[in-house]
Amino acid sequence: MNFTSDTSAPAHPAVIEALASVNTGMEASYGGDSVTAGLREKLAALFETEEFEFWLTASGTASNALALSCFCSSIGAVLCHEEAHIARDERGAPEFFSGGGKLQLLTGFGARIDREALETALGQINPSFVHETPAEVLSLTNLTECGTAYRAAEIALYAGLAKEKGLSVHLDGARLGNVLANGKTAAAEMTWRAGVDVLTLGLTKTGAIGCEIILLFGDARKKSGELRARAKRSGHMPPKMRFLAAQAHAMLDDGLWLKLAGQANARAQALADLFTQAGFDLAYPVDGNEVFPILSKDAARRLVAAGGKFYPWPGGAYRFVCSWSTAEAEIAAVADALRA
Amino acid sequence: MNFTSDTSAPAHPAVIEALASVNTGMEASYGGDSVTAGLREKLAALFETEEFEFWLTASGTASNALALSCFCSSIGAVLCHEEAHIARDERGAPEFFSGGGKLQLLTGFGARIDREALETALGQINPSFVHETPAEVLSLTNLTECGTAYRAAEIALYAGLAKEKGLSVHLDGARLGNVLANGKTAAAEMTWRAGVDVLTLGLTKTGAIGCEIILLFGDARKKSGELRARAKRSGHMPPKMRFLAAQAHAMLDDGLWLKLAGQANARAQALADLFTQAGFDLAYPVDGNEVFPILSKDAARRLVAAGGKFYPWPGGAYRFVCSWSTAEAEIAAVADALRA
Amino acid sequence: MNFTSDTSAPAHPAVIEALASVNTGMEASYGGDSVTAGLREKLAALFETEEFEFWLTASGTASNALALSCFCSSIGAVLCHEEAHIARDERGAPEFFSGGGKLQLLTGFGARIDREALETALGQINPSFVHETPAEVLSLTNLTECGTAYRAAEIALYAGLAKEKGLSVHLDGARLGNVLANGKTAAAEMTWRAGVDVLTLGLTKTGAIGCEIILLFGDARKKSGELRARAKRSGHMPPKMRFLAAQAHAMLDDGLWLKLAGQANARAQALADLFTQAGFDLAYPVDGNEVFPILSKDAARRLVAAGGKFYPWPGGAYRFVCSWSTAEAEIAAVADALRA
Amino acid sequence: MNFTSDTSAPAHPAVIEALASVNTGMEASYGGDSVTAGLREKLAALFETEEFEFWLTASGTASNALALSCFCSSIGAVLCHEEAHIARDERGAPEFFSGGGKLQLLTGFGARIDREALETALGQINPSFVHETPAEVLSLTNLTECGTAYRAAEIALYAGLAKEKGLSVHLDGARLGNVLANGKTAAAEMTWRAGVDVLTLGLTKTGAIGCEIILLFGDARKKSGELRARAKRSGHMPPKMRFLAAQAHAMLDDGLWLKLAGQANARAQALADLFTQAGFDLAYPVDGNEVFPILSKDAARRLVAAGGKFYPWPGGAYRFVCSWSTAEAEIAAVADALRA
Repeated sequence: MNFTSDTSAPAHPAVIEALASVNTGMEASYGGDSVTAGLREKLAALFETEEFEFWLTASGTASNALALSCFCSSIGAVLCHEEAHIARDERGAPEFFSGGGKLQLLTGFGARIDREALETALGQINPSFVHETPAEVLSLTNLTECGTAYRAAEIALYAGLAKEKGLSVHLDGARLGNVLANGKTAAAEMTWRAGVDVLTLGLTKTGAIGCEIILLFGDARKKSGELRARAKRSGHMPPKMRFLAAQAHAMLDDGLWLKLAGQANARAQALADLFTQAGFDLAYPVDGNEVFPILSKDAARRLVAAGGKFYPWPGGAYRFVCSWSTAEAEIAAVADALRA
Repeated sequence: MNFTSDTSAPAHPAVIEALASVNTGMEASYGGDSVTAGLREKLAALFETEEFEFWLTASGTASNALALSCFCSSIGAVLCHEEAHIARDERGAPEFFSGGGKLQLLTGFGARIDREALETALGQINPSFVHETPAEVLSLTNLTECGTAYRAAEIALYAGLAKEKGLSVHLDGARLGNVLANGKTAAAEMTWRAGVDVLTLGLTKTGAIGCEIILLFGDARKKSGELRARAKRSGHMPPKMRFLAAQAHAMLDDGLWLKLAGQANARAQALADLFTQAGFDLAYPVDGNEVFPILSKDAARRLVAAGGKFYPWPGGAYRFVCSWSTAEAEIAAVADALRA
Repeated sequence: MNFTSDTSAPAHPAVIEALASVNTGMEASYGGDSVTAGLREKLAALFETEEFEFWLTASGTASNALALSCFCSSIGAVLCHEEAHIARDERGAPEFFSGGGKLQLLTGFGARIDREALETALGQINPSFVHETPAEVLSLTNLTECGTAYRAAEIALYAGLAKEKGLSVHLDGARLGNVLANGKTAAAEMTWRAGVDVLTLGLTKTGAIGCEIILLFGDARKKSGELRARAKRSGHMPPKMRFLAAQAHAMLDDGLWLKLAGQANARAQALADLFTQAGFDLAYPVDGNEVFPILSKDAARRLVAAGGKFYPWPGGAYRFVCSWSTAEAEIAAVADALRA
Repeated sequence: MNFTSDTSAPAHPAVIEALASVNTGMEASYGGDSVTAGLREKLAALFETEEFEFWLTASGTASNALALSCFCSSIGAVLCHEEAHIARDERGAPEFFSGGGKLQLLTGFGARIDREALETALGQINPSFVHETPAEVLSLTNLTECGTAYRAAEIALYAGLAKEKGLSVHLDGARLGNVLANGKTAAAEMTWRAGVDVLTLGLTKTGAIGCEIILLFGDARKKSGELRARAKRSGHMPPKMRFLAAQAHAMLDDGLWLKLAGQANARAQALADLFTQAGFDLAYPVDGNEVFPILSKDAARRLVAAGGKFYPWPGGAYRFVCSWSTAEAEIAAVADALRA
């Protein structure tokens, strides 16, 4: 009954096996190894394009900050939702990596940027007015911090609006697998075909030990050298990179990451059903592996008493996160506790 | 016959096993897990003190830069050898993490800081002269980039000189195991008892996948909160930290790291003997796992032809690095090639 | 009829005369001159204390950013109003000088921070939660960007709340003269006695060429060396500092700055009366030298046609700023245009 | 007998008069004024080109750091002499403004970069080797910190070598007037025609209150917007910029700056002759307004006893700086003291 975070889950056994399988012989350091090189083909297949460059890191904060710093200068700003992970939970990493760039916070229900808020912000950009910091990047998050999703068409719409004003588009995909798991949208549709220039694709929450992939699509590939240099000087060029790459191989092989994300989603949906059947509203729709029931104090108390672990959320709801390792028994235990 | 770097070696199997062994159940994220907590006892035993705090990272550049940024302000400087890894090979990481602090480069044979150079630099510090950047940290490296070692008494002497002028003392111990492997000096003697405030203890080159430990000793523990905050915002607070900690457990258990380092040292010594017997001088004494023979062009060519891999070094020598996985057969192959 | 900004006004003639008067003989560079030293006595008299240190700059952005960077670390945040000059009009200067610190924006009518918003923000500070950036400074502005004022008791209340949580308090006094000009509150009451640690006292808008004074009060004096170092490395240690100091002398002598500010306030009051008599509401109360009438489009057009210069303001009002050099004839011209 | 620095001198009276002359009426703020605009024509005449953009600051450190930060990225380095002002005397300003870029220090007699040292450094640049920080800018200083000059042909040679490797070229011209004062070389020859992309032209040491001009030549003009943004966020966009521009007008009118620089040079030459006639060697040739005699201790003592002020210089010499205001009587007093 531990629903605190998908980052508290163990790694999928296939990931550990993958590490063991690449642990033989000498390999070039710092990303020049054959395991990392071998990822290219799988990413090309996943994203249906050869026009990309990529880099691996072990943390989502690192991936987001590195990605943003290649597109937001020290005298520019990033448009993002006020509840975005980059704004709330990364201790100023984007400001640090960009050398003092700003985040301009936008509103919207369920951690999804409101279209009007975006259009207003875009309309106010005036690079020739030197006193204000012009937005240079739009950063979207999918799945959002509230467990809601943008559809591909929305990403495309927002990216299009941003690009008209000369902005680059970043997608924080720490939980992108949870969005794509139902198989209705291809990874390409949700990313580069929708106008995303740089994606941080998270595999850690999905089931890796610690593995995130930064992908530069299309013209954004010209930032590849800068990305590597920034990775190096921020300590995100691990010498034995094969062990990051091996995790990505394990997750991408046979679509394991999507299976695991789908499993987490299914558990979340079951949990959501339990809550609504018990008469509790959900603060946000459940588009992935996170559920935000507005529990009564009594219900929350009973869940805690039964060994449940979960966090209160700003606004009165509680956050329940499911992972690939969330067992059906845990859902059943929630049902029991709610019924008690 | 691959002597390019100890970072090209695989991890020791015990490290992979350790990852598998901790891959069960939920754990608190971001370093709050029981595996990380369990490291404390082993580090206390190794360093013979309870007066320390620690943090884990996956790269030496990250560890060095984080450690330095807690002691060198944005308006201060770090004294280091001109060939130090932080000066030559980290793409400005110290400058980035410190917010624009400077490195002040000192000279000395074999990448060891010359005492006179240190005393001159320390003598010139004048914090009240606002135009110049005063040194705030002395950074030593042991083993150095040239494979030479400082003895504990030298560390203590240099640290003492630095502290008289109010500086903090950092030790880059990316290859500290190679210094300590002969068992003649205790880890405590070489570090906090010698005046080291902050140590970056490398286990990656010794045989881990990617695991470095930053240790704050004594009064330096007051920087612990700042270190965590800086780790977070630089992306060095991986969510599933148990997998970093597990590597450290594997390496420290039964002194595995020192055994592996000793094995690498032995191979390096064998290599050094081969070179000298073949009539080639060594550019620097062999104090650890690196050998710098001044090969004739012909000898270098023969080695390459036989499949040898190694790098030329500034000044005319070549660098050969041995790791825990360097086989006796590789040394024998060098002997054959030299004889050919 | 130019009401665009008090920064568009010329300097008061006494300022030019003061420059001429100190333009004799050699003086120590970089602030070591006798003219700068002589300011100490006048500032001590003005602020009724000897417990202060000061530094001079030529721009308000520089003063604010330098002041903040001594109290907000690169891993901390500044609480300020969302319409504050440091948030809106300084192109990320606080983020730049602090090395990536954040601004946390608070709401409130008329660019004055709302008490509840402040208390909420202060209540959320949790330095031990490493993912979020804790506020380290409260920055107030008096006169605000909307021409409204905090009373000394309000400054004291807010500063007290902030200090309970361990924050330092900064006052952006770019137009402090306009607040103090009515003579009802002493400079000391509005600043250090109310708990202000660091004040940026503006004289440029009041009538200087370009002269702002950063004052560190009480315990904040320990930041004096750091302030000088930061001034040096940001290019705000002009070699011939006597010419900055001379401006401050001219403005402080016989309370000239308050006379000039009072004159600007009087013009603004006259303007406000004109607008209200003509039936236009004011968006904000007029506490200083700025008036924000909600003009009809027709009235605005007539004013422009008559040669009036002023800016539209977010929210539908227009901003009229009076300076020491605003002539009664200009006010009369506005009256004529409104009547036309 | 005050030879401590040309920054200790007063401003030329024409500069004060110029301030008074522009102190009338309203002007657009932040550089949009007519006085600043009027400078364009004079700079075009001086540099014999229309292909430039410019910005004004009040300090040389600000000008250098702003200029460099437009061409050296946070992941790049600046090649400069180890005794350059940007390396020795600006408290890390280039590192701060560039966001953590590095200075790579080159050797050479008399603070002039040695050609071989330059070629070696240029030859080592390898942007594809991500671990090292590649040089992106060559910064030359003319007049150097040792009072020596580069000839235009040398600037052109060095700039050509740098440009072959893709570097931009910066000229620190804090004392460029002293180089050009003899009238043998045109400003254009020494700057953009020689390949200089960005010049910081100092007028403060020559006789202004505080006025430096950053000039972007040719293709470097594309950095104009970035330069303004960086000036704004570093507090170097003074609201009443007309008073900076007025100083430049005064100095450029009728070549006043060159006359004043020539006068300072003449005094320095007279001083140099005195020293050599008295049997003292000069540490460096006298190419401008600085003299570095290797005085006996006795001679130095006598000069001090007679009221002489000057600084010891690293290496055993003493530094004597003449300014536009150095009187013949002061030279005569030195002669007397030496003879005594």
